[in-house]
Amino acid sequence: MAKDKPLRPKARLPRGFRDRSGAELAAERRMLDTVRGVYESYGFSALETPAFEYTDALGKFLPDIDRPNEGVFSLRDEDEQWLSLRYDLTAPLARYVAENFQDLPKPFRRYAVGRVWRNEKPGPGRFREFTQFDADTVGSSSPAADAELLIMVCDVLKALGLAGSDFALKVNNRKLLDGVLDAARVEPSRRGVVLRAIDKLDRLGLGGVRDLLGSGRKDESGDFTRGAELEAAQIRIVEKFLGSAPPDPTLGNLERWWADIAPGHEGGAAQGLAEVAQIFALVDHSGHQGRIHLDPTVVRGLDYYTGPVFEAQLTFPVTNEAGEAVIFGSVAGGGRYDDLVARFTGQAVPATGISIGVSRLMSALMSRGALTLAEDPLVLVLSMGDVARAFELAHQLRQAGIRSEAYVGTKRIPDQLKYADKRGAAIAVLEGEDERAAGTITLKDLALGLELAKSIETRAAWVQERPAQTTIGRADLVAEVTRMLGRQS
Amino acid sequence: MAKDKPLRPKARLPRGFRDRSGAELAAERRMLDTVRGVYESYGFSALETPAFEYTDALGKFLPDIDRPNEGVFSLRDEDEQWLSLRYDLTAPLARYVAENFQDLPKPFRRYAVGRVWRNEKPGPGRFREFTQFDADTVGSSSPAADAELLIMVCDVLKALGLAGSDFALKVNNRKLLDGVLDAARVEPSRRGVVLRAIDKLDRLGLGGVRDLLGSGRKDESGDFTRGAELEAAQIRIVEKFLGSAPPDPTLGNLERWWADIAPGHEGGAAQGLAEVAQIFALVDHSGHQGRIHLDPTVVRGLDYYTGPVFEAQLTFPVTNEAGEAVIFGSVAGGGRYDDLVARFTGQAVPATGISIGVSRLMSALMSRGALTLAEDPLVLVLSMGDVARAFELAHQLRQAGIRSEAYVGTKRIPDQLKYADKRGAAIAVLEGEDERAAGTITLKDLALGLELAKSIETRAAWVQERPAQTTIGRADLVAEVTRMLGRQS
Repeated sequence: MAKDKPLRPKARLPRGFRDRSGAELAAERRMLDTVRGVYESYGFSALETPAFEYTDALGKFLPDIDRPNEGVFSLRDEDEQWLSLRYDLTAPLARYVAENFQDLPKPFRRYAVGRVWRNEKPGPGRFREFTQFDADTVGSSSPAADAELLIMVCDVLKALGLAGSDFALKVNNRKLLDGVLDAARVEPSRRGVVLRAIDKLDRLGLGGVRDLLGSGRKDESGDFTRGAELEAAQIRIVEKFLGSAPPDPTLGNLERWWADIAPGHEGGAAQGLAEVAQIFALVDHSGHQGRIHLDPTVVRGLDYYTGPVFEAQLTFPVTNEAGEAVIFGSVAGGGRYDDLVARFTGQAVPATGISIGVSRLMSALMSRGALTLAEDPLVLVLSMGDVARAFELAHQLRQAGIRSEAYVGTKRIPDQLKYADKRGAAIAVLEGEDERAAGTITLKDLALGLELAKSIETRAAWVQERPAQTTIGRADLVAEVTRMLGRQS
Repeated sequence: MAKDKPLRPKARLPRGFRDRSGAELAAERRMLDTVRGVYESYGFSALETPAFEYTDALGKFLPDIDRPNEGVFSLRDEDEQWLSLRYDLTAPLARYVAENFQDLPKPFRRYAVGRVWRNEKPGPGRFREFTQFDADTVGSSSPAADAELLIMVCDVLKALGLAGSDFALKVNNRKLLDGVLDAARVEPSRRGVVLRAIDKLDRLGLGGVRDLLGSGRKDESGDFTRGAELEAAQIRIVEKFLGSAPPDPTLGNLERWWADIAPGHEGGAAQGLAEVAQIFALVDHSGHQGRIHLDPTVVRGLDYYTGPVFEAQLTFPVTNEAGEAVIFGSVAGGGRYDDLVARFTGQAVPATGISIGVSRLMSALMSRGALTLAEDPLVLVLSMGDVARAFELAHQLRQAGIRSEAYVGTKRIPDQLKYADKRGAAIAVLEGEDERAAGTITLKDLALGLELAKSIETRAAWVQERPAQTTIGRADLVAEVTRMLGRQS
């Protein structure tokens, strides 16, 4: 290294992270406010937990993680204890409830919105930091608590501007999945692999899942994933369940359906069937009944679910930035996790929750035209030799509720106008010496100017005609800017 | 360890972190919305950067950090590169600007709100995770950019409900501090220690700072901090500056004042004096001129400042939870950092910014009565044998904009009423079998009930009089609940 050249860090983002700005964040904020409004209207209250938890408190419940400590960002604290960044909002909730159990109302109903981190291999559209928006009811074993979440998520999606026909909620129950694995005599040690295989049905299709239930599967890149090594007879039972068309979910219908899938194996599944029936009985009165279905293929990847599981999927095609149709996956999902608090206390505390994937939902809404990227229009007051005066004019406009910026850079007028364009400003305000003397102000309608620029051919004509520009009396500033903004919108 | 007792993780928060809930978060959200509104009204746009940056990109600018890598949370990524959690929002901004320089409008004006992390020794009120709310103008060397931030922060504090007399903005310039150290012939290697000593003036007083400028200081606990080892003559020059009363800041006045403090040493300080004069000339027209003062003792701890520095302090006494008066420190601060982007690019990019300490400002507002902890009132619909019906009633109330929860737990009515109390519900709605038959609904005004409970002596009288309880026709539910909530507020 040459000694006279200082070593400079490279300005770059770590892999799997991203910067976001202006209009995108404004749209996200509007969306989050709507979700929050619905959650609060149901009586959920906000809870915020820190980014860090003790690693042992978080537990290992991530899907597709075979090696310990993979999937999370961890570091050692000064007292030698391991800390991890949360990978979801449910594990911290369980820690919070266990820590504050005596003081909490039961059921404890909280919502939480926040970033979570996954130390995974980043890929296109796959980030290592993202936002979840959860609502959970802790301390009730009643299927009413599950049903309420399903109804509430439908309310959320409608409040965000989706039509009822734009989405469907798919409901299953881990007790039914367990019942099928009982019927197929799948040993406990293989059940995690089996569930993870089923969870990939959307992506791999039934053939791919069949491979993963059996000897394994080679993907397009040639990578081989080991299978669960089930026998053909076992796979047939699982496949029959996955492929079956569930009936109208009254208890009688469900029991008949189950007797056909796993004859003689009601066992724990009976409880699952009863829960499903109770959930659908409540859903029936909600106004969303057409949107919520029993679906035997729903698993939800996380290891901690114990009962009802559900996910919200879109029913309309979504295209990516390249215009290609993409499989969108679920925009929200959740389920019942009755053992998560007991990890700490040894005492069973039933709990159920739903989690919205914020960026995925946002893409869905934008693709449906239900959410648009937009900031408030900006007025730029140019600085023509007297910044104090520019401050004064911007202040006048702000007092009238108009977003307005006084130029604080050091460039001349033509560059200030280029800046106004680059900022996407709606109007430029100019008060030069001539205008000062005459008591006037010049307004440039930049939106209109942009429009006209397409039709006016020569620079000479442009300079002569001065389109989209108007000179007004000093006292008319606010009124005229307001009128111009109104015309633009 | 006994083999039959499973090893359970302890439910506890890592040191220096905290959980926050309901009313506190609602109040914070109202506060942040107000700050955002003012920042946006000045034309700043949102930017969000990730929690992680490459460690070398963040740089080491924390105050009071002598050992490298102390003060930040760092870990090694899978590709062996070091990542750190951001310790402020300015260093990531510098990385962002350097990375996207060509595409950004200049000046680039962004605001950002987000959590930052400091790996420091936690203490009472001293957390390792907290929220900052920044606004920065990057790409302008004009003192107008600094002046605008000062004026804007005054607008923010007023919009939050503080009176003009509740706060003061103190302004200094690192170029003046450098000028004094030039005059005192303090060698470059000692200047960091000297500035950090001056930065402690609020807390230690002039005597403590004098010790730290000299041989060192022993604190109450007996711990000794090494001093800057300046000679008495050097210390006298620094002290004269710190103790001087700055004049009305016109350029002429400032130059005369400086000639007395550091005769014959205008040098770089001359530029600083000119910047101060320009800032105050702009501030003079802002309506906040009485609130913004030149103060030679202001340093701002971070190492990256190069020009004007400023902080907002409260002028009213603040008491802590124990009722003791506390020194509150600044609720916002910032300054100019012209070299931070150049770390990456080698090209100077002038920049200035202000940062609000969110939790500190929140405490200040609450102590002034300008912010109160409150959530929207909650109506609890009890579940009396028919959850579907409770869902229906809660739905009716929500449709009318009333926050209402249907009880989804499994307890009986008396316990449901206890739950309503614990939640702080405003009203309980009961529709039992008798009421169903009669087409009526019973409402309990829980706020009034709590009030009356203080004055009614015996349980017998309570049961007989049934105060704060009313039975209404089924059709009047929304109207009656609305009336009751109106009476409570």
